[in-house]
Amino acid sequence: MPRFHLVSDPDDPVVAPFRAIKERDLVGREGLFIAEGETVLRAFTRDAPQRVVSLLIDPKRREKLADVFAGLPEFTPIYLAEQGVLDAIAGFHLHRGILAVGRKPPAVAARDLLASLPARAMVLVLCGIANHDNMGGIYRNAAAFGADAIVLDADCCDPLYRKAIRVSVGAVLSVPTARLSRDESIADLLDATGFEGLALSPSADEILATLKPAARTAVLLGTEGPGLSPDVMARARRIGIPMANSFDSLNVATTSGIVLHHLRFLGG
Amino acid sequence: MPRFHLVSDPDDPVVAPFRAIKERDLVGREGLFIAEGETVLRAFTRDAPQRVVSLLIDPKRREKLADVFAGLPEFTPIYLAEQGVLDAIAGFHLHRGILAVGRKPPAVAARDLLASLPARAMVLVLCGIANHDNMGGIYRNAAAFGADAIVLDADCCDPLYRKAIRVSVGAVLSVPTARLSRDESIADLLDATGFEGLALSPSADEILATLKPAARTAVLLGTEGPGLSPDVMARARRIGIPMANSFDSLNVATTSGIVLHHLRFLGG
Repeated sequence: MPRFHLVSDPDDPVVAPFRAIKERDLVGREGLFIAEGETVLRAFTRDAPQRVVSLLIDPKRREKLADVFAGLPEFTPIYLAEQGVLDAIAGFHLHRGILAVGRKPPAVAARDLLASLPARAMVLVLCGIANHDNMGGIYRNAAAFGADAIVLDADCCDPLYRKAIRVSVGAVLSVPTARLSRDESIADLLDATGFEGLALSPSADEILATLKPAARTAVLLGTEGPGLSPDVMARARRIGIPMANSFDSLNVATTSGIVLHHLRFLGG
Repeated sequence: MPRFHLVSDPDDPVVAPFRAIKERDLVGREGLFIAEGETVLRAFTRDAPQRVVSLLIDPKRREKLADVFAGLPEFTPIYLAEQGVLDAIAGFHLHRGILAVGRKPPAVAARDLLASLPARAMVLVLCGIANHDNMGGIYRNAAAFGADAIVLDADCCDPLYRKAIRVSVGAVLSVPTARLSRDESIADLLDATGFEGLALSPSADEILATLKPAARTAVLLGTEGPGLSPDVMARARRIGIPMANSFDSLNVATTSGIVLHHLRFLGG
């Protein structure tokens, strides 16, 4: 059973990792991350209980979370602090009343990750996704449709940022992820691991609705506006999603949902 | 040609509609709305130039927007104010440097709107969508996939709210919209106008991927969590989007994109 510790002094050193959350969001936490709220905590303890470092909660929530606590490794500390103390620790009003500190998973090489997947696999490769809402939304869709992994390029933001975790409903804690360094080539990665890259392009001849994908498919998603780099586009299979009304783009998270839904249910 | 007016005093009464934007967002504008940024302004002047009341822009943007101004009705006033004056008028730093005041379209009865559509039509009916990001995202998808109209229930937020307009990339200004009063029944509306209601439900036997819709289809979308009311569900055709990993819901805007893509390209 994990142990409960009552915290009444916001300066108590045991809750240091929970202090000044918004300021620390900006500088990072050296291998740790902060997650908030009941939905995310439930996903976290279900999918990666061994990565929960500690919890800080309002004692009012204790009873409702009993099953969550029971799923944690023995001795995981659970700090209890009344709302006023919680707010003083976090540095803002924490209306959700639930915080967790987690340990990031060890880095894995993208090539090793993709090579380890089944012969029939579906992954996402994200290029320059810098908006945490979009990042979280893409992970949520990846988890919902069973994507096997996500590869991030060097320009993507951190999926383990508090807002991205929340928007993903915790999916960033379960979808296997690797990050490329700036000198690694996406096209080489896909060639070496036998994945066909799919790139959305308004000028493609082939459309998503009739696509029959390869056994191993990597959906390449870039930012709205600049999109994917020319060398990535040049070696990818281009598919289009035709649009009406002179609209020329969808939100990138929505696009991931549409493409993953097609691959999962209509691409066989 | 519209006329340019230089504004150097933030208290000049001609720019009263642009004043204290965030405070007025909360109380409403009695038949007017505020839109911001170049992308939205371009959509607005393309789709509904007669509803542009006036513009307020940083003179630095004047040259780049010459084609936009040319598309406006004669005598539409265009106020020019340097960044500092702009910020003082708006009440916050307006880094986009472009604001428009628009006139809301006259209210139309939902029954009249749906009855006026072609024999083959696709509409959305939104129930309790209170988040402006989701509202904007749904409109963006509706425009991209050519939905014919959107019907809002009495609990939906205003699509002509500044943030929803921005997230929609201006689509809220072009998709025909009607709002139901609290005593109007969605099921009766659909029966009277010959639309089949489609409701997403995790327990449905039929799945979206194999759906062959009726000629006139109304996609019913509710909030995550409470979802659609029992009486709406009871009279709708239920379809499911199966999910992996014990995930039980998608974001509602993403859902709208997936369903509209299917109806447009695979539902025929």
